[in-house]
Amino acid sequence: MDLALALGRRGMGRVWPNPAVGCVIVRDGRVLGRGWTADGGRPHAETRALAQAGDARGATAYVTLEPCAHHGKTPPCAEALVAAGVARVVVATGDPDPRVAGRGIARLRAAGTEVVEGVREAEARADHAGFLRRVTEGLPWVTLKLAASLDGRIATAAGESQWITGPAARAMVHALRARHDAVMVGGGTARDDDPLLTVRGMGARPQPVRVVVSRDMGLPMDGQLVRTAREVPLWLLHGERADAAPWTARGAVGLPVAESEGGVDPRAALAALAAQGITRVFCEGGGRLASSLLRADLVDELWLFQAGLALGAEGRPMLGPLALERLHQAPRLRLRGLHTVGGDVAGRWARD
Amino acid sequence: MDLALALGRRGMGRVWPNPAVGCVIVRDGRVLGRGWTADGGRPHAETRALAQAGDARGATAYVTLEPCAHHGKTPPCAEALVAAGVARVVVATGDPDPRVAGRGIARLRAAGTEVVEGVREAEARADHAGFLRRVTEGLPWVTLKLAASLDGRIATAAGESQWITGPAARAMVHALRARHDAVMVGGGTARDDDPLLTVRGMGARPQPVRVVVSRDMGLPMDGQLVRTAREVPLWLLHGERADAAPWTARGAVGLPVAESEGGVDPRAALAALAAQGITRVFCEGGGRLASSLLRADLVDELWLFQAGLALGAEGRPMLGPLALERLHQAPRLRLRGLHTVGGDVAGRWARD
Repeated sequence: MDLALALGRRGMGRVWPNPAVGCVIVRDGRVLGRGWTADGGRPHAETRALAQAGDARGATAYVTLEPCAHHGKTPPCAEALVAAGVARVVVATGDPDPRVAGRGIARLRAAGTEVVEGVREAEARADHAGFLRRVTEGLPWVTLKLAASLDGRIATAAGESQWITGPAARAMVHALRARHDAVMVGGGTARDDDPLLTVRGMGARPQPVRVVVSRDMGLPMDGQLVRTAREVPLWLLHGERADAAPWTARGAVGLPVAESEGGVDPRAALAALAAQGITRVFCEGGGRLASSLLRADLVDELWLFQAGLALGAEGRPMLGPLALERLHQAPRLRLRGLHTVGGDVAGRWARD
Repeated sequence: MDLALALGRRGMGRVWPNPAVGCVIVRDGRVLGRGWTADGGRPHAETRALAQAGDARGATAYVTLEPCAHHGKTPPCAEALVAAGVARVVVATGDPDPRVAGRGIARLRAAGTEVVEGVREAEARADHAGFLRRVTEGLPWVTLKLAASLDGRIATAAGESQWITGPAARAMVHALRARHDAVMVGGGTARDDDPLLTVRGMGARPQPVRVVVSRDMGLPMDGQLVRTAREVPLWLLHGERADAAPWTARGAVGLPVAESEGGVDPRAALAALAAQGITRVFCEGGGRLASSLLRADLVDELWLFQAGLALGAEGRPMLGPLALERLHQAPRLRLRGLHTVGGDVAGRWARD
């Protein structure tokens, strides 16, 4: 199952709206087939592992998520496992998708296949967190990434932010982008930094959707994002009264979202992304978008990159207002990992 | 010499204005005596190691700093080593004190004692950095410690700061205080937090001097610092026009310091401490004092404790203004150590 989980992670960021599943087929202690969800979400991991195995009669299949039971664009995997004569299926965790929801396992058992459930379940639920969240809550998993000085500033007073962290940290950010379905920034960051928001330096691969949250659609037409909107998807989450036509004419996709407290409502924005199939969002700031997500308790994980420099109180803050009255109301995160990256530090913090 | 260095460190924070020296006396592969500078700076490490050794004839003495050559309150250690018949003295680094400055080594050699210099010199210079800085520049070593949220805030907008970090981090701060001659805060922190600034939870031991930097002497009379001024030294670095009499009547020591840019001049403040014999200062904020030290390039080491919570842009910043125009002007620090402390993170950063 550890191998199946590792294989499944290869699909992260490239299979939405489907889950990034891994599958290993074993007989007599030998691995006959390995599979993972293909780019775009099809074929499924089980199909690919069975194809590699050829003859899988009497074998055990390890799958990181309950095999599907519904006829979609591909025939159901539970059926394929039965047809291949697999004797035993070990499943890490169930699929809450209403089209599956236990039916995959029931179909296997009905056909006389032995099923073991719950092996490495915690790891699988962590890997599938975005898929599970979308299916059960209609929201994606949110990773917030911020690159700041030691005193928590993401730019000088004049807006200069390139580069606070070093090349190793920036390369790590590209690797993190690649594991998400969408990369999201606020309108201010899109204007000030003129970012491209693509995954670079990692070979040819599917690109995450680029998302800009901007109530009033103040995105410059000549920026890198709009200029490349026909090559790499660019979605604009804007207020309901804004007119996205000039941007959609250039290849961007406009998604109107309800407003709250003077901006796009963060929960409505994420729900709009989930409705489009997005399961994992990588938010790269700025401070106001980051704090609006934190205030709404929508941040699942925070990657904080810190460089060994100080920018002082005039610098732009890493987070906007949180409207706390007391210390005990502060959003709390728990340390999950701490790394040195070049001369910088990267801390991984998760919702408590 | 590694043992001598480890012994020497025992004196850190308790021997000022003297250096925290370590000494080991060895003969035929056996350790005959171990010594380190005693509390208050006397007896010296060599004297104590010789006393423990008893008969040190023909032995080798490892000393982390050049033995003294002047008759002060104790007879010179170079003479004591000669009188004890020590055959060989291994010295980590020279003592730039004008009363020594090579004379200790010269006296040993004149008496026919073999001297080896420069063994573990870099480590010894790091350990003696405060003593060396005071002797050569008239300034102490400065360690800045800040305890902040992930977004670099040291208190809520209302000033609530107890406790951002957890008990393990606070215990570590007491251990760090104990290795310094003085613990220093700005007047705002002294007013808002009402700290005691003593070393606690580490057994009976000499306390560092407590220092408050406050141009206008706005320190409340009923605070913990002033109430305990007769038990643990409290020094007030104030502007030249302020009147410290009400505080000195309660046991505090007033030290007038030149002003600059609307506050006590940070370099003058440190020079005043060095003039009193202080070699190592542990500054615990607040943000304005911290940024004034950083602006003047007076911070040797930064310990940044970070807790897994966010306080938002309304929170009090870890650093005051730095008046930077461009990113490349930012004060830079290099990572020297990274630790998890309870649920918090402690990063040790040193001047680049």
